[in-house]
Amino acid sequence: MAGQKNKVTIFDVAKASGVSSSAVSYALNNKPGVSEATRAKVLKIARDLGWKPNGAAQSLARSNTSRIGVVLAREETQLLSVEPYMMELLAGLGTELEQHDYSILLRFAVGRDAEMAILKDWIATGNVDALLLVNLEMDDPRVELLKNNPEMPVLALCDPSLSGGLPVMRSLDMQAVTRAVSYLHDLGHERIGRVGGPESFGHSYIRDAAFSDAAAELGVRYRCLHADYTPSGGIEATKRLLSVSPRPTAIIYDNDVMALAGMGIAREMGFDIPGDLSIMAWDDSFMCTAVFPHLTVMGRDIVGSGRRAAQLLLKIIDGEQVDVADEAPYDLRERASTGPVPAETANR
Amino acid sequence: MAGQKNKVTIFDVAKASGVSSSAVSYALNNKPGVSEATRAKVLKIARDLGWKPNGAAQSLARSNTSRIGVVLAREETQLLSVEPYMMELLAGLGTELEQHDYSILLRFAVGRDAEMAILKDWIATGNVDALLLVNLEMDDPRVELLKNNPEMPVLALCDPSLSGGLPVMRSLDMQAVTRAVSYLHDLGHERIGRVGGPESFGHSYIRDAAFSDAAAELGVRYRCLHADYTPSGGIEATKRLLSVSPRPTAIIYDNDVMALAGMGIAREMGFDIPGDLSIMAWDDSFMCTAVFPHLTVMGRDIVGSGRRAAQLLLKIIDGEQVDVADEAPYDLRERASTGPVPAETANR
Repeated sequence: MAGQKNKVTIFDVAKASGVSSSAVSYALNNKPGVSEATRAKVLKIARDLGWKPNGAAQSLARSNTSRIGVVLAREETQLLSVEPYMMELLAGLGTELEQHDYSILLRFAVGRDAEMAILKDWIATGNVDALLLVNLEMDDPRVELLKNNPEMPVLALCDPSLSGGLPVMRSLDMQAVTRAVSYLHDLGHERIGRVGGPESFGHSYIRDAAFSDAAAELGVRYRCLHADYTPSGGIEATKRLLSVSPRPTAIIYDNDVMALAGMGIAREMGFDIPGDLSIMAWDDSFMCTAVFPHLTVMGRDIVGSGRRAAQLLLKIIDGEQVDVADEAPYDLRERASTGPVPAETANR
Repeated sequence: MAGQKNKVTIFDVAKASGVSSSAVSYALNNKPGVSEATRAKVLKIARDLGWKPNGAAQSLARSNTSRIGVVLAREETQLLSVEPYMMELLAGLGTELEQHDYSILLRFAVGRDAEMAILKDWIATGNVDALLLVNLEMDDPRVELLKNNPEMPVLALCDPSLSGGLPVMRSLDMQAVTRAVSYLHDLGHERIGRVGGPESFGHSYIRDAAFSDAAAELGVRYRCLHADYTPSGGIEATKRLLSVSPRPTAIIYDNDVMALAGMGIAREMGFDIPGDLSIMAWDDSFMCTAVFPHLTVMGRDIVGSGRRAAQLLLKIIDGEQVDVADEAPYDLRERASTGPVPAETANR
């Protein structure tokens, strides 16, 4: 969690680099006045020493913008805004920031290059006081960019294994996966399917590993397909999971949109929910209690996570050290879409 | 639509006010240098003459921020972010603004007072180049505020009857309502129910009137209840509509969330959809094709509307005159949740 440590100052960096403190300041603040070689050397030493920007002093220097930058990126071919998750996160972030007269500066980028260009512009111009990074991928180029520009405060929403040492707020997916698999196993399910999110997303990979481990631990036969969080992705994956004999008797989905669509197509195929097939979703938006049967979910307080991210960002801007903070844990919200595996359908 | 008219200049306003053009400029730009009485007089005359700010000159004067301000307001007790609509709108807005290196400055206000305070701050500081106003209510205090501060470019998403002469982009609800009622009437439905949005919202009232008129025109018996766009609101209203004999044989919902929940509870009550009851939604998010049967909707291109709003805002900032622009029209997207009224259930 957040805490104050002995701070490395620019004087420490200057001493270790063998240059003046103003040269260090120029280098760290991306300003002219030092050679590229010196700048590279200073940045490396600052990183090695664990130097973090003092947000308060820096804000004065850069003029406080009272803005947090968020870039939502998608690929050309992707659907826009399919998930309620992001709106809930932004609502929590914005509502908390409001208490401190901070705004969200929001950009919508098409493609990774456009996203990187916006981040570089913000770093160069100081147009925001800090950045929130979302949807991190493995070997994400944003991580390298922000590590090379330690003067820009940042919080990444991801597992610490993906952030390269940048401050993170992580979701507690491992525990949640274990809980979900145990819950279905306790209901008698021995064959569990899963429709995961895009394989390139860091948190999909982390959940993949956790599911495999939990299934192995309990002797559950586990099958996984990856989709793109959309209804059609959920429908296709569900059809495939149910077409292979012996089929799973329970399916877990990585978001609620795919779970809704998966439950729908399963019923169209003649399966009773939960009599023949249990359905379980990840994340708990309005949809989960708008559909019948209501969806059993692994839920978490996404608006609350947005609020917590805002608090952490403000701390980081103020120069406090944040390494790894936890989101509120998931909880199992049992509703009508899951039930015991009936003996007669177990081998259907 | 947008177009260039003979512009009223500050010199015209100065002449009609009997003060200097610099006094007019001070008054219109909310700067010291004129008495409150003079300021009030100048503003009134500027309004009467139809003066609009010249965005290009004004941007130079105020320094161009490349930001469009959006405030999302809710009451203390309201759920956050229930509707996909807003995220789709923001995505369209942001994607189009991206082409012009513009950002969205996003604030989340709790309560009308907080919202007004943010708008006043933006007007005073010029922290955004223009404003997008959403969810207008009848006698909305934001309209008066923006009319009194004509130096701040603004676009309101509402019917022109609600905007007090501010530039608007309107949705073509009247035509869509007529189309929806005719469609159900052609299927044989003589008793149509509706679950509308909050009665205080301007567009709910406009739809109310259009539904009454369309029903009267066709001799349809029409019943309407208002709810709050949430699943529970949709469920309660649906139960009430179906509990009064003779019940409606088709129900139209003002958003897709309530339609999803309404269809769910109707099936729980034993109604076959669409055999016993046709269900129709307004707006077409991912949910409508994730649920089975897929929902028949009056759809529109919300992302496209967001893009169009961005284009209009940039025109207004550039000093072009925009009075009333139209969104893309709704279209009827017929899916599986609607069908003919069966003779044997018509009087059930």
